[in-house]
Amino acid sequence: MDDQSRVRRPGGRSARVRAAVHKAVTELAAERGYGNFTVAEVAARAGVADTSIYRRWGNLEALAMDLAIDRLTSQSSMPDTGTLDGDLRAYAAKAAADVSGPDGLAFLRTILALLDTGEAGAQTRDRFLSERGEQIQRMLASAVARDEKVPEVLEVVDFILAPMYTRTLFGTGPLTAEYVDTLVDRLLTATNRPNHTG
Amino acid sequence: MDDQSRVRRPGGRSARVRAAVHKAVTELAAERGYGNFTVAEVAARAGVADTSIYRRWGNLEALAMDLAIDRLTSQSSMPDTGTLDGDLRAYAAKAAADVSGPDGLAFLRTILALLDTGEAGAQTRDRFLSERGEQIQRMLASAVARDEKVPEVLEVVDFILAPMYTRTLFGTGPLTAEYVDTLVDRLLTATNRPNHTG
Repeated sequence: MDDQSRVRRPGGRSARVRAAVHKAVTELAAERGYGNFTVAEVAARAGVADTSIYRRWGNLEALAMDLAIDRLTSQSSMPDTGTLDGDLRAYAAKAAADVSGPDGLAFLRTILALLDTGEAGAQTRDRFLSERGEQIQRMLASAVARDEKVPEVLEVVDFILAPMYTRTLFGTGPLTAEYVDTLVDRLLTATNRPNHTG
Repeated sequence: MDDQSRVRRPGGRSARVRAAVHKAVTELAAERGYGNFTVAEVAARAGVADTSIYRRWGNLEALAMDLAIDRLTSQSSMPDTGTLDGDLRAYAAKAAADVSGPDGLAFLRTILALLDTGEAGAQTRDRFLSERGEQIQRMLASAVARDEKVPEVLEVVDFILAPMYTRTLFGTGPLTAEYVDTLVDRLLTATNRPNHTG
């Protein structure tokens, strides 16, 4: 296969390997928790050679980070319902579905475990947070263009994501549609209150 | 030493062993993360026999749980400033100091790691959450007695604790006094808004 045919096949072998490796890491993280499996085990489950993983990602931390960013960006087509209210509700519902999904808790735990790995952890955090921040900014962009009053990115995190993460991590109750709507209501109330300085 | 003298000495050997073991676990959790040390290592650092730990706590999970609950309850003398506003600010400042302290992150990580340990994890969670809930109820009790409108326990968690936990776990910025006050402002605004149903 020459370079040209490689370029012509974005869904080819390379993408299949990546998908298989990501799937293997996701499963192992859900089964055992991040930190309790090796590159060799990922390779065996994905049906690829260890060397393919080392050549492509370098180490397990970099692979897990790639997975985390991939997961975040794969959901980055942001809602555009025509109102800030609608966009926030769509964003919150999507974030809740993601965090509550079968591997949502394992994903959160993986991110947190990665943050504990020194310099690589700091890089992971920076990439993750910058990706998440840009995602939220994209969601707010159309409301900004309509000259609507919008919340700060950190307010979206505090009001919507933080309670979802905390509920999921501590296992203190399901993220029901009603609960998710309450979180959005609180953010909108805070954003629109007269003395809001944002 | 007979039973009577044991009763007379609440700060005696048993309490010293407990304190030394708790200190050893706290240090090891901060240094290596929960899950990366053994009962033997705790015993060695605390200067006690392994068997003392097994006899008293049964296993490492039970020991870590005891520590978590102890830590929570040791801070359970709740503020009583005469106003809900003052009590909430004192409570939030204390929670922030605790989470930001030298072993605050290790403590949070330990709780989360414990929650991942099956049945023992579920028991830990239930004890931790029930203790935390009672702590918050105690804080709200005097405002309730004054017939003030008070937030729900889960609102205190969502507005104040969840953003603090998320910032600390993800390492996204210090819990400054200004930030902590902002969290309380948001909760009070939500509690006092006309259409609040709580």
